[in-house]
Amino acid sequence: MKKNRRTFLAQGAAIAAGASSGMAQAAAQGLAGQPWERAYGTPFEGYGQPSRFEQPVVRYPLKPYGELAPGTGASLSPIERLEGIITPSGLHSVRNHSGTPDIDPKQHEVLLHGLVARPLRFSMEALWSYPMVTRIHFIECAGNSVRNLAPQPLQLPAGAIHGNMSCSEWTGIPLRTLLEEAGLRPEAKWLLAEGADSAHMSRSIPVDKALDDTLVALYQNGERLRPEQGYPVRLLLPGWEGNMNVKWLRRLKATAEPTHTKDETSKYTDLQPDGRALQFTFEMGVKSVITRPSSTMKLPRPGWYEITGLAWTGAGRIRRVEVSSDGGLSWSDAALTGEERPKAFVRFRLPWEWKGGDAVLQSRATDEKGQVQPSRKAWLARYAPANAYHNHSIVSWSVSADGSVKNVYA
Amino acid sequence: MKKNRRTFLAQGAAIAAGASSGMAQAAAQGLAGQPWERAYGTPFEGYGQPSRFEQPVVRYPLKPYGELAPGTGASLSPIERLEGIITPSGLHSVRNHSGTPDIDPKQHEVLLHGLVARPLRFSMEALWSYPMVTRIHFIECAGNSVRNLAPQPLQLPAGAIHGNMSCSEWTGIPLRTLLEEAGLRPEAKWLLAEGADSAHMSRSIPVDKALDDTLVALYQNGERLRPEQGYPVRLLLPGWEGNMNVKWLRRLKATAEPTHTKDETSKYTDLQPDGRALQFTFEMGVKSVITRPSSTMKLPRPGWYEITGLAWTGAGRIRRVEVSSDGGLSWSDAALTGEERPKAFVRFRLPWEWKGGDAVLQSRATDEKGQVQPSRKAWLARYAPANAYHNHSIVSWSVSADGSVKNVYA
Repeated sequence: MKKNRRTFLAQGAAIAAGASSGMAQAAAQGLAGQPWERAYGTPFEGYGQPSRFEQPVVRYPLKPYGELAPGTGASLSPIERLEGIITPSGLHSVRNHSGTPDIDPKQHEVLLHGLVARPLRFSMEALWSYPMVTRIHFIECAGNSVRNLAPQPLQLPAGAIHGNMSCSEWTGIPLRTLLEEAGLRPEAKWLLAEGADSAHMSRSIPVDKALDDTLVALYQNGERLRPEQGYPVRLLLPGWEGNMNVKWLRRLKATAEPTHTKDETSKYTDLQPDGRALQFTFEMGVKSVITRPSSTMKLPRPGWYEITGLAWTGAGRIRRVEVSSDGGLSWSDAALTGEERPKAFVRFRLPWEWKGGDAVLQSRATDEKGQVQPSRKAWLARYAPANAYHNHSIVSWSVSADGSVKNVYA
Repeated sequence: MKKNRRTFLAQGAAIAAGASSGMAQAAAQGLAGQPWERAYGTPFEGYGQPSRFEQPVVRYPLKPYGELAPGTGASLSPIERLEGIITPSGLHSVRNHSGTPDIDPKQHEVLLHGLVARPLRFSMEALWSYPMVTRIHFIECAGNSVRNLAPQPLQLPAGAIHGNMSCSEWTGIPLRTLLEEAGLRPEAKWLLAEGADSAHMSRSIPVDKALDDTLVALYQNGERLRPEQGYPVRLLLPGWEGNMNVKWLRRLKATAEPTHTKDETSKYTDLQPDGRALQFTFEMGVKSVITRPSSTMKLPRPGWYEITGLAWTGAGRIRRVEVSSDGGLSWSDAALTGEERPKAFVRFRLPWEWKGGDAVLQSRATDEKGQVQPSRKAWLARYAPANAYHNHSIVSWSVSADGSVKNVYA
């Protein structure tokens, strides 16, 4: 890892970018005309799609029951093919328990009942008329990176291992507004949130979070929610584990105690070394992953590259991301984009010269509460070997002399 | 317009939101089960799409030559159906001069030549390896809102009149990087930028802007550019008129003087009252539009509504957006989202009680340079009647006693 980062950034991007690595070519003459310059192009489309040359960029399905239950499991975002902070809605990660329901918004209602003064029903027409707020937030499944707990490191693209998270601009109604309208009773300390999928996926949510920054989200990246993201209405609990952000929301019931649904007892608990399980690990840990270069890629030749990736924390803002190319012996601070936003992805970037030898690339995030992303070893020591959730440990990619990038446990 | 905005915001959204207007309904019993709760949902999709119930939300095509040239003209964003700041890529506005070319990125190159020390050619493979930056910026066509210069106000949705603008998260290479690599000669003051469409749409760009915040954009909202947004590579000149953001970029030629291409002489000039035309109005004026309620909508009943819309300026940041419901006699400050970002959309919101009478809704933006969005009358007085560009005047929507919202000139 080049230590004097300020100096080489100051040398200008011409160096970092490839003047010395031959990326651009000297141009002795003009460009040959291409066929598309001689043909009238395609007409306007009502709703645009990616180029046909980008069709291979799709989500990675993870179906634990195969074609017996083709909508159960997860579909991971191809983070190694993406840039910036916003995940395009078509490639947002999905975690479904019984497929995506096909909901008619004219028939859908949300019931708010239980320990409230005035039980209420909201049609979608009613919800779309409430005052809204717009914020950028990530959602990460508590089971993200479970594949990196396999006995041997899987040689898969970064997204197929760590892509069970995404980040969107969400617009919705503060849940507080609806709770105040219904009148929460003082003894109401929890909310049961239930989805309208055929699994009726349900979680218990502390009232404090519901009154804080929780949204009843109706729009994602400017348009109404996508079906697999909860159309027409979902919960958004910024920074908290993915399945609490209940999709296809149909019911909120105010209760004195947590309901202990199947989705918070049989799953999403953290198995400890002593055999007991921690319940209700809501806030997602500070985490980062290098998306480029990453597993299964190949560096074409020695020279300057940009190391880039994503960092996030359920605790608020990312303060710092460090990058190592020697397996953690030395670290350099990366440049950050988006670090002013809480509970949102941050894009980090660092120029790096690959001299052609072996390297191990790692990133390490620190958040505004001073929490530091743990090493894989330190994280593993906290749990029983069978624990499958909340893996936010440091990710390592090795680069070999031939330029191939591999997933390694370091 | 209710003057004491702080008070009614403080009263809580329960009032603003409909407790008094009957939006939510009392719930005597639970919800009836819906068919989608009893059926296993749909499987995972590689690339997601909007709900079938949202299929009517598409762009508005504007084809001045009809089906003789079905890809020439514009396709406007349905801004009245969207929320937040980010425009989903599939609904981003489009201005094409000869359709969308179908470019194979393996064959496409960018030539940088003219008054440079080292003429260079960049393959897409090379460009994708350069260090990048990520920023949120709007693009507005200089011809946006031309339809609001019709003799009588057109009764069309807001997007079909004012939707020739959109806002995305762009990721790309600072153009400065490539210019430094090629070595601009001191006499180079302009760049000719040329597209690979069959119109070879071309503009002259001052070198100062190219060295300031101009991007060679490769990604939009996280994924590679959409074809109609310039796939695989376009220019992005934050805050400057849309067609300077040359799509399908194939050539940059450094020159001492502007080239005076057909696209900057026969079009995109501003006709003055004295018959002369202003050339090179690069920076887009400070502007805003209420997207909801807006033209062709109908308010179902008197009560509380949220007035919301978009504001932007080519000069930098939006400082203030005021809203009037009495045709400009009185104004109230709206709440802003995104005002920390320069040359990006800002979402504004203001609760408003419609008491059932006549109203005229207007918004007025002020930017950080103190520029104030002009009235329609003041703007018209600056130009000849035939001028078609840079209409950034205040937009007026009337509300009638029956709740119908119309486009009016006020």
